[in-house]
Amino acid sequence: MTIELINTGSELMLGRVLNSHQQWICRTLADRGYIVDRQVAISDDSTALVAAVREGLSRADWVITTGGLGPTCDDRTRELVAAMLGRRLEHHPEVEAQIRSYFEGRNRPVPVRTKVEAMVPEGAEVLVNRHGTAPGLALWLDPNPLRPDGRPTWLVMLPGPPRELRPMVLDEVLPRLTKRFPRTEEFVCRTLKTTGLGESYMEELLDEPLKELVAMGMDLGFCARVGEVDVRFVARGELAHAIVAEAERRTRAVASAHIFGVDDESLETVLVNEFTARGLKLALAESCTGGHIANRVTNVPGASAVLVAGWVTYANEAKQKFLGVPEALLKEHGAVSEPVARAMAEGARTASGADYAVAVTGIAGPGGAVPGKPVGTVFIAVAGPDGVEVKQQLNAFDRETFKYITAQQAMAAVLRRAR
Amino acid sequence: MTIELINTGSELMLGRVLNSHQQWICRTLADRGYIVDRQVAISDDSTALVAAVREGLSRADWVITTGGLGPTCDDRTRELVAAMLGRRLEHHPEVEAQIRSYFEGRNRPVPVRTKVEAMVPEGAEVLVNRHGTAPGLALWLDPNPLRPDGRPTWLVMLPGPPRELRPMVLDEVLPRLTKRFPRTEEFVCRTLKTTGLGESYMEELLDEPLKELVAMGMDLGFCARVGEVDVRFVARGELAHAIVAEAERRTRAVASAHIFGVDDESLETVLVNEFTARGLKLALAESCTGGHIANRVTNVPGASAVLVAGWVTYANEAKQKFLGVPEALLKEHGAVSEPVARAMAEGARTASGADYAVAVTGIAGPGGAVPGKPVGTVFIAVAGPDGVEVKQQLNAFDRETFKYITAQQAMAAVLRRAR
Repeated sequence: MTIELINTGSELMLGRVLNSHQQWICRTLADRGYIVDRQVAISDDSTALVAAVREGLSRADWVITTGGLGPTCDDRTRELVAAMLGRRLEHHPEVEAQIRSYFEGRNRPVPVRTKVEAMVPEGAEVLVNRHGTAPGLALWLDPNPLRPDGRPTWLVMLPGPPRELRPMVLDEVLPRLTKRFPRTEEFVCRTLKTTGLGESYMEELLDEPLKELVAMGMDLGFCARVGEVDVRFVARGELAHAIVAEAERRTRAVASAHIFGVDDESLETVLVNEFTARGLKLALAESCTGGHIANRVTNVPGASAVLVAGWVTYANEAKQKFLGVPEALLKEHGAVSEPVARAMAEGARTASGADYAVAVTGIAGPGGAVPGKPVGTVFIAVAGPDGVEVKQQLNAFDRETFKYITAQQAMAAVLRRAR
Repeated sequence: MTIELINTGSELMLGRVLNSHQQWICRTLADRGYIVDRQVAISDDSTALVAAVREGLSRADWVITTGGLGPTCDDRTRELVAAMLGRRLEHHPEVEAQIRSYFEGRNRPVPVRTKVEAMVPEGAEVLVNRHGTAPGLALWLDPNPLRPDGRPTWLVMLPGPPRELRPMVLDEVLPRLTKRFPRTEEFVCRTLKTTGLGESYMEELLDEPLKELVAMGMDLGFCARVGEVDVRFVARGELAHAIVAEAERRTRAVASAHIFGVDDESLETVLVNEFTARGLKLALAESCTGGHIANRVTNVPGASAVLVAGWVTYANEAKQKFLGVPEALLKEHGAVSEPVARAMAEGARTASGADYAVAVTGIAGPGGAVPGKPVGTVFIAVAGPDGVEVKQQLNAFDRETFKYITAQQAMAAVLRRAR
């Protein structure tokens, strides 16, 4: 079975937005054993759109389009696809009623332009939009006139806004998918999330232990991210579960110190879950990361059971006043120093009453370097029941990467201490 | 001129990573007048990779590939492309020396596998990698054997990690690009960033004022984001600058209250820049946004001149102890209430000495709803020299979207107050 995903939108080709649909749809389908073979993005230009959909339909069993179903002048997927397939657009009173009730429920007038959203190509199934106005549209092309052998293709057109598209995929598309294309063989995908060892070293380490499983047909993949390397196993068929489980066992046997989680787990998820399970409390004192760690920790549902308090203390006065860092320390060593990191962590732990406090102070750049302390210099302190440990790092990256990788190191450090 | 971008990586098709290359490359090129016509993502599978590169080469003037140049077993772009074009891979001693010095400079042994990165297809130009080991590769195919008319194509292969790819595009690719494909006509792209008005309403508002300019060939585009709508003008040719300037003037005349910035400006950038220019100081007291606002504000270089202090006060005790919220208020009204938001903002302003303090308290979900206060309820308070204002919102979204849109409203509120 081949799947092709077509994302439309000039904002994609102009680089104004990240294509979050691609990741979300690919992941949602892959987790259920359906792998997208090709993803294509094109502008709202009608020639490009028609060419891409035509190509997709000429070779794939399932073609998904995103975007171009809205009410504005650059939303043309509906009409272009209907014209390409020689289908008329028919007015759909139920869809119009839904659109009307969407606006009425928000005490807003119905914009004239939304009328076009109630037009549906002949023979298309309507996918209800519970979070917006444009419905999705599904066409089962059997025979598919664009495939040389006439084999059927399922064409599913989804609206662009993620908060409309995502529930529509889960509630409307997936139930139909398993009927259209029942899965025929086992499929297992497992990712081990690692930190602290580069991609090449990791592959060297795993080469020998995993050789046999790769020879049995298991896909082994590596993905280097900032401060992380994903190790991914994919297997199909009857033995899929056993092969992947064995791969994980062998990998843990040689690399357990570097593995912090599995699949889509983030360090912050692991941190919140472990602290929750053990009834531990956390406090954060951030200078150069400016709330980045707190933000990531609080992205995890249930973080309120773990995070007692966080401070963003850019200014020296804030470090003194709120964390009790002695002025003399700041004067003698500077804000970016081992003693100040230590005092921040101790201050945060004492003020909050948390079991562990993490403090970071460093130079995110692009400005702020001083002699002996280049941009990227950072001190990470973890205060716990058994004292304070401080580590110096040099994370010489752009500002946002600096914050990200520093947060990785800080979260990994507190996890290690608490384990 | 047609441009095609091919992103390789099974992690993309499995939905394990966001394709940030697509946005970054498309934007970097679009800002210089080069619009990518089609972007394709495929797995590391050799058949898919060869098919995608072959298709790209058969129709585009410029084909860019990303990924698959590294040292691991799933990095196959180099060898597959060389084989497809019938070119031998030659050992390149200079590249090997660079790889060796990369590792030596970090006091690490050279992994055996990195040797393959020193192999270069016959006739390829090497693009220096200053932030990693795999060099980029550029081939000027003239004639291009895969195009029916033999017209030349520039094939540029870039490494996958963003921090290697980005400087390589800026330092190595762009200088060659303007020589290979000099620009022939003016190109102007301008985006107005708006907040507080939906996409359909915005288009209705602009329809009449911009009609004439659209008839002159200006592209008008809308992009709805969470809490924002982008209005985008694109024009080409001699009059491009004049047309886009006039479109901006007319749009501001009817929608100025909703416009907070231009092009890629974020609310946080506008906020930091305006506060810096006027010497104003900011403090943040975040409950439900958990450091999200602080993180975004501190992503802006120079934020340290504006942000005095931030608090993440999830726990009631933290609200009392660090922001001076009276216990009685919390008991009487609950943490998610107008009086508590007000007290948090006042407390943060007083403790920090900032000109303005923003406080948010709400229910991010998925848990935490109470009768009369559903998930998504939030109070946003802004304390300034002229008192405190509190606004209640209902942002019924998933947790991260809730944080994002609440932050938008909070930043827009403090900007409005300070203007």
